[in-house]
Amino acid sequence: MPKLVDHEERRRELGEAVWRVIRSRGVDSASIRTVAREAGWSPGALRHYFTSQSELLTFAMQMVVERIEARLSALDPPADPRRAVEQRLHELLPLDEERRAENEVWLAFAARALVDPRLRAPHEEVDEELRRAARATLEELGSAGRLRPGLELDLEAERLHGLLDGLALHTAMRPNRMSPEVIRSVLARHLDSLDPDEGGR
Amino acid sequence: MPKLVDHEERRRELGEAVWRVIRSRGVDSASIRTVAREAGWSPGALRHYFTSQSELLTFAMQMVVERIEARLSALDPPADPRRAVEQRLHELLPLDEERRAENEVWLAFAARALVDPRLRAPHEEVDEELRRAARATLEELGSAGRLRPGLELDLEAERLHGLLDGLALHTAMRPNRMSPEVIRSVLARHLDSLDPDEGGR
Repeated sequence: MPKLVDHEERRRELGEAVWRVIRSRGVDSASIRTVAREAGWSPGALRHYFTSQSELLTFAMQMVVERIEARLSALDPPADPRRAVEQRLHELLPLDEERRAENEVWLAFAARALVDPRLRAPHEEVDEELRRAARATLEELGSAGRLRPGLELDLEAERLHGLLDGLALHTAMRPNRMSPEVIRSVLARHLDSLDPDEGGR
Repeated sequence: MPKLVDHEERRRELGEAVWRVIRSRGVDSASIRTVAREAGWSPGALRHYFTSQSELLTFAMQMVVERIEARLSALDPPADPRRAVEQRLHELLPLDEERRAENEVWLAFAARALVDPRLRAPHEEVDEELRRAARATLEELGSAGRLRPGLELDLEAERLHGLLDGLALHTAMRPNRMSPEVIRSVLARHLDSLDPDEGGR
């Protein structure tokens, strides 16, 4: 009786199945068939939600965005603006198993967008969202007097976004090369280099 | 009479055909069939060189490395060490059509390595090569007194490598978003931030 079932509830249920498959078998194993089996649905029922692996990946990417947003709004930001910015940026970086899985979805989604024109627009949206987040953190540092004077914000946003995505790419490609400690230190060093109080070390 | 034909000559010929296909139709169109047609070979003859698209991509990636090495060794470096470093790093960045094509091969190769375990080792090799290059440029700046004292070289190498690959990723994903001018400026700004003479702007 699918009509009696709340659509959002089914979507959430589906999302959890997608996530369990990704966590246990990796994003490339998340096919319509494996997700249907995990959710206990028929592949036919699943096809009401998505008809190809590209759509499934787009769905998984939407979940990543929702998960990050939920974590960001649940944060209890420290008073120090530099620490607050750092805490938020940590939510975007692959610093634990959960965020590594999200990061792998992001890279698989981007890699698919390279060859599937239908994913270009959703990919651009995510990409712009991240660039805006990079810029917003710089503006926040600026308002708090924690940004060296005279910096070009557009350029700094490109640089910060480039660094964040470079670190994410490196971690997704070679999960065991850089420790979470090193990733945090690289970001901290970058923020130090923008901070007038840190003397540009 | 394949035995009479010089192997290196055939490999070069093949490389050029791969490259023409990549430039005219994109890296995803570079299948064994299209490359064989472009080279005027039979698909069977081509299979003496590679048996899958993964091998073809590995071959294309080797070509990218060789092309970059050839350009680097043909450079006429300026006397100023900062300019010399910048000139070399520019050869790695997607600043013109040729380097954009190379960059797309790199990303396609990396994306394939995510799902094809046989590409992991060749990908790691390329990745290590780039990390060594990032570190070597920092050491060169250090020897020339153009690196702020007290920097942790390992961390700075991760940061520079992360930034370079982030810029490369962003350009491959969205070729028209950032101009070559902006890419150069982001790199210049990063090198400025490491330079004691630039006052950490």
